[in-house]
Amino acid sequence: MQPDLHSRALAAHALHQFRTLSPLTHCMTNEVVQNFTANTLLALGASPAMVIEPEEASQFAAVAHAVLINVGTLTESRAIAMRAAVEQAQRANTPWTLDPVAVGALEFRRRFCLDLLSLQPAAIRGNASEILALAGMRGGGRGVDTTDTAAAALPAAQALACRVASIVVVTGEVDYVTDGQRTVSIRGGDPLMTRVVGTGCALSAVVAASCALQGDRLSNVASACSWMKQAGEFATEHSTGPGSFIPAFLDALYNLNAQELA
Amino acid sequence: MQPDLHSRALAAHALHQFRTLSPLTHCMTNEVVQNFTANTLLALGASPAMVIEPEEASQFAAVAHAVLINVGTLTESRAIAMRAAVEQAQRANTPWTLDPVAVGALEFRRRFCLDLLSLQPAAIRGNASEILALAGMRGGGRGVDTTDTAAAALPAAQALACRVASIVVVTGEVDYVTDGQRTVSIRGGDPLMTRVVGTGCALSAVVAASCALQGDRLSNVASACSWMKQAGEFATEHSTGPGSFIPAFLDALYNLNAQELA
Amino acid sequence: MQPDLHSRALAAHALHQFRTLSPLTHCMTNEVVQNFTANTLLALGASPAMVIEPEEASQFAAVAHAVLINVGTLTESRAIAMRAAVEQAQRANTPWTLDPVAVGALEFRRRFCLDLLSLQPAAIRGNASEILALAGMRGGGRGVDTTDTAAAALPAAQALACRVASIVVVTGEVDYVTDGQRTVSIRGGDPLMTRVVGTGCALSAVVAASCALQGDRLSNVASACSWMKQAGEFATEHSTGPGSFIPAFLDALYNLNAQELA
Repeated sequence: MQPDLHSRALAAHALHQFRTLSPLTHCMTNEVVQNFTANTLLALGASPAMVIEPEEASQFAAVAHAVLINVGTLTESRAIAMRAAVEQAQRANTPWTLDPVAVGALEFRRRFCLDLLSLQPAAIRGNASEILALAGMRGGGRGVDTTDTAAAALPAAQALACRVASIVVVTGEVDYVTDGQRTVSIRGGDPLMTRVVGTGCALSAVVAASCALQGDRLSNVASACSWMKQAGEFATEHSTGPGSFIPAFLDALYNLNAQELA
Repeated sequence: MQPDLHSRALAAHALHQFRTLSPLTHCMTNEVVQNFTANTLLALGASPAMVIEPEEASQFAAVAHAVLINVGTLTESRAIAMRAAVEQAQRANTPWTLDPVAVGALEFRRRFCLDLLSLQPAAIRGNASEILALAGMRGGGRGVDTTDTAAAALPAAQALACRVASIVVVTGEVDYVTDGQRTVSIRGGDPLMTRVVGTGCALSAVVAASCALQGDRLSNVASACSWMKQAGEFATEHSTGPGSFIPAFLDALYNLNAQELA
Repeated sequence: MQPDLHSRALAAHALHQFRTLSPLTHCMTNEVVQNFTANTLLALGASPAMVIEPEEASQFAAVAHAVLINVGTLTESRAIAMRAAVEQAQRANTPWTLDPVAVGALEFRRRFCLDLLSLQPAAIRGNASEILALAGMRGGGRGVDTTDTAAAALPAAQALACRVASIVVVTGEVDYVTDGQRTVSIRGGDPLMTRVVGTGCALSAVVAASCALQGDRLSNVASACSWMKQAGEFATEHSTGPGSFIPAFLDALYNLNAQELA
């Protein structure tokens, strides 16, 4: 059974809410994508902040609307700070989101991510190989690239969502968002997005921020996926390669029109 | 009493000097904006270098024309390296500039910045909330965003400049540059600049580099603000959002014409 | 005697090979250029990965097609991880490339780079001052900038290549690639490339990735230089400054046509 497509009207409504709240989003993310992640959030109307010292990260997690943990360039000292932030987020009821980058290929981050799962993430966003690995079903994965399709990882995503009581997003040509019971799909985007570093990581930041919205979290997270796919499509049409895609994508997010979306 | 507008003729003259000197600018800045900061300095004709290991940072501070300290993603180990660089800068008479990012919201960096103030910064650049916090008057501030206007922070900036014997720059819709006695203002720019991460941080780097110029430091620092506001205005006119703003801004800095400025 | 120009036909053939292999390239590089480096590799069809924790970096060096070590923002902890990766690369026969950024100006990284030379780099890529310094002939160098021409450093590059049994690339207005016996030159590019941070660092990553190709390594590395110079020329023609150069350069790499090259 094919999951229902996420409704454009819901995506438009969530976008309006998102811009009104302007969620203060505490991103503990990898060194490669910090700038693009911040610009993505700013373009959509959120307020990003990257705070990484353990004491400060913990202090900030209590103040922020949402926290993102992305393990792309994890180190031991960063892991300590991330854990402090997540523990504080949990105490303060700040929703936090996990992006388990390349978790299938590397042991140190796999142990760290599995350990964090007990601290109730609001959402988890990964590609098929990452979600399969996190769910304990070994997928392929080649560095940070997936070798599996999102659809193939959907059962793993659903099982993981049930086990962790979290929203799980598995992205690819089609994105799937599931809480284990309900699943919706989001189409769109373009393969050119895989030729720009950080589009997946930036989506995780937007997913994290969308968890701060009121209402149905599954729908809000699916809306985040929808905004990014829409902007990616628009940017692809208006660019001549991955270089010009980047400014076009940020412009598209900035100019994303709730009415057009719907 | 409204401070005098900084003269365009002075900004044009300082730009010419800046390009002639090509100040070697040692930037110890946050992880999010390093690339944009380096490209901003390069576009204006300066030579950026990011050196962060304590021994090297100290060695380099003696060779560089100017040093920037930006605490956006401060860690304990980075703080040690920054302090070593600042101490060496002071010994070598290399002017150093402080950007106290989010200093009002977070304790670890607040202690660090207050501690550094005794080491005679040439300049301090922050938004209103940051300058208020550094001056000991608690401003609002929401993450890295200000909740106060630059004008509201001007008395704090003037008091801080007197106390530390430094140039203080408080930026916003209007920028103010003060040494405690004299104050000039710079108009221009565009709110779109706040939707691009690192425009403020990059300004701090240009302020740092401008402290290496000969002549009146207050005027040179105000000129740095003027170049950035001019380029920001031009880039806004030639872009369709924050994405296309970035290349347009760097191009505008590169093509900034001393004659047009004046 | 002027070295032979590298043949366009060889560059075109190598590009085809490169896109077919899509080398998984493990980049341990400086904080300033990670994003641009990843996007450069992606645009050319390679698969970048930035893994920095010592255990993971070592694990990944055995899986990757190629490893890059760039010491631009070296720290003690990063040096430990880099050394672990290089040792594993050597054991696994993964070719690794060294970019000795600013090695002439700073002691800590000089000791580290000299130490690594005993671990058989496949290639070394630097500007004239860096290659002179690494070869033990002190060049000038001003921060990360060279004060020598590539041609002046060619004898040092040849001597270094012989001593280390590696390919040495010294870049500038003309690039030279040598194994100590044979030397080829690559013309093209544009001075605008020196106004964009990371074009040299990104070339080192492409050089590293090209060492994973089968066939004559000297020729493959020279081809990497050729692709970058070609794209740089094209991007300069299609941009109005260093800001618009960046997207134009990535687009040019993405659209680089093996037939046009030849």
